[in-house]
Amino acid sequence: MHKKYLVAPGPTPVPSEVLLEMAKPIIHHRTVPFEKIFGEVLADLKWLFQTQKDVLILASSGTGAMESSVVNTLSPGDKVITVEGGKFGERWTEIAKAYGLTPVVLKVEWGTTCSADDIKKLLDANKDTKAVLIQACETSTAVSYPIKEIAEVVSKTDAIFIVDGITGVGVDDIRFDEYKIDVLVSGSQKAFMLPPGLGFVCLSDKAWKMNETSKCPKYYFNLKNELKNHKKNTTAYTPAVSLVIGLKKALEIIKQAGLANWFKKNAVLAEATREAAKGMGLSVFAKMNPANAVTAISLPEGIEGNKVPDIMQDTYGVTAAGGQDSLKGKIVRIGHLGYIDPSDILVTLQRLEWTLKDLGYKFDMGKGLASAQEVFYKNKTLFQ
Amino acid sequence: MHKKYLVAPGPTPVPSEVLLEMAKPIIHHRTVPFEKIFGEVLADLKWLFQTQKDVLILASSGTGAMESSVVNTLSPGDKVITVEGGKFGERWTEIAKAYGLTPVVLKVEWGTTCSADDIKKLLDANKDTKAVLIQACETSTAVSYPIKEIAEVVSKTDAIFIVDGITGVGVDDIRFDEYKIDVLVSGSQKAFMLPPGLGFVCLSDKAWKMNETSKCPKYYFNLKNELKNHKKNTTAYTPAVSLVIGLKKALEIIKQAGLANWFKKNAVLAEATREAAKGMGLSVFAKMNPANAVTAISLPEGIEGNKVPDIMQDTYGVTAAGGQDSLKGKIVRIGHLGYIDPSDILVTLQRLEWTLKDLGYKFDMGKGLASAQEVFYKNKTLFQ
Repeated sequence: MHKKYLVAPGPTPVPSEVLLEMAKPIIHHRTVPFEKIFGEVLADLKWLFQTQKDVLILASSGTGAMESSVVNTLSPGDKVITVEGGKFGERWTEIAKAYGLTPVVLKVEWGTTCSADDIKKLLDANKDTKAVLIQACETSTAVSYPIKEIAEVVSKTDAIFIVDGITGVGVDDIRFDEYKIDVLVSGSQKAFMLPPGLGFVCLSDKAWKMNETSKCPKYYFNLKNELKNHKKNTTAYTPAVSLVIGLKKALEIIKQAGLANWFKKNAVLAEATREAAKGMGLSVFAKMNPANAVTAISLPEGIEGNKVPDIMQDTYGVTAAGGQDSLKGKIVRIGHLGYIDPSDILVTLQRLEWTLKDLGYKFDMGKGLASAQEVFYKNKTLFQ
Repeated sequence: MHKKYLVAPGPTPVPSEVLLEMAKPIIHHRTVPFEKIFGEVLADLKWLFQTQKDVLILASSGTGAMESSVVNTLSPGDKVITVEGGKFGERWTEIAKAYGLTPVVLKVEWGTTCSADDIKKLLDANKDTKAVLIQACETSTAVSYPIKEIAEVVSKTDAIFIVDGITGVGVDDIRFDEYKIDVLVSGSQKAFMLPPGLGFVCLSDKAWKMNETSKCPKYYFNLKNELKNHKKNTTAYTPAVSLVIGLKKALEIIKQAGLANWFKKNAVLAEATREAAKGMGLSVFAKMNPANAVTAISLPEGIEGNKVPDIMQDTYGVTAAGGQDSLKGKIVRIGHLGYIDPSDILVTLQRLEWTLKDLGYKFDMGKGLASAQEVFYKNKTLFQ
């Protein structure tokens, strides 16, 4: 009897109610019962994306939805600004290059953010920019970008603002319509509390307008075709039926909590995790704008940092994430989005303390837990 | 207590053992336990595809896998032969056009097949053909194409042979290596007994060679990148974890049955369905090469044919499929691939008889059942 905990920044745990819903006998997608579910899910997604526009559901992981946002709005040769402050920013540049666009790369030191002013300067210097591509949360560094402020800058130009909200939607208060975002992308295995396999994408009128002249080739990810089908509560190609059925249940859980509480929960868990890090004598990797979806804790010098996620998982049953690429062995990342509450974070911190002690790091055991506990208790009404 | 039956040509029913496997708590994909499962699944897929080459798993439905087979081997301007004997043949042409290829379309009367000689003549007249694209089974008309014979013809040219085996793999004895097929595609919601959401694609050396010079843009469906990752029992982007876990269980069920028995089962169910149609005084839509995955029965003149699938489903609890496009109201399609056995087909035929009677068709009730029964009993050892 070793209980397991999943606190990666995705996949996130799936509630039993959702797992059991998906374990019901499969139904056909071209039927009234499925189309009814699909219609309800689409309405709930609009609520979560805070938009009157249609949110499209793709049978793909988040990267597929990212690709769809590029190939449905842009054309080969188009100049785009990509913000590279981590691994997922680099992915935008890679997708842009794969489709023959011309990326202007804004390099951001990993662990820091960029400002709306940085983007404004780049846009002023590149008047022919067709799109700005960014993450809401750069999951590899656990830093958030100022989406609202950047959206305001981009909305005053002819460029569209494409946001990878894979670990942003359902985590932070990202108001698609109000902020004037043009494309917002997400994926099922994050705040949506589902297994991976669904991508989401929402386009503004400005983005749909660009779709009319977009020359990038597309077929499976043809969003205009999907929109036409979604309007009839169906999809162009076979949808991932069981995940859509699970999504209905998951969205009901989020609706029951309420959007404001749901966002607040993530923020409180993030704050508790950051305070715990300090309590253990460690620092948060993000020098500014630490994310609410995931916290990256810098590991102490002098211990074998690359062993931290392995020991936490293999010995102590908690699956967190290590660092990627240049951050390997330097950080441990603890996700607190989706179906994660103070109990999961408390156990995670307990096992992180055990792991650090095992690896020879000198600190007062329990100090991390105590620091988190203060934050939790202050916000305990959220969890009653 | 109204039991439901799903006998569409996909999605097909998912065995409870598989549903329960997928209902277990989700695990992270970058872990030893998942990579072990992934490795086992890849080995089993090779067995099912009858190949020594790698079978790649994509988080997409079958159409995504079809697109991947085109964009990873071909380049804009390339001439390709597509065989249009139904809706899915048309899909090959549409994908080819979306990526700027030049399709030479072989029009095949719906309900009939083409011969290897037809393909040979077209290849002789178009020496610069880079690929021949076809279905193993054209699901919209329930006709099979002679894959083995066509593969032999294509293998003697520089062109590659791309086969949509979405309702072929795991249904018919399609030997990837022995037949010299170059690309074989399938999808999880068919013979694999899973919900939709996984695409499969397997490439020959000849196809991988063409990958080196392929200029179609790709990112999410970059198979070279996937191959590199699959070799390490992982994927480039987040895989559909729960479906992969279900796949392991589903492939175990097929292995336990044995490949020959599994293929035979589909053939027997198909034969029984065809005999039942005759017993009801109806004809099979396929004038030649009726498929083993699905049977299309031509509906009698003078009844409201478009009501048949609806009554079968809404009144009698059996979800079959109607005709698509020009075949709407003309046929009913009964799938017998995947987790379907004589009990499902028997019930389906019972409800089809009820439905036809309700709609005023004059025939001897029970004759269809009796005709099927003879075929089942002759092959009963398969089901013991």
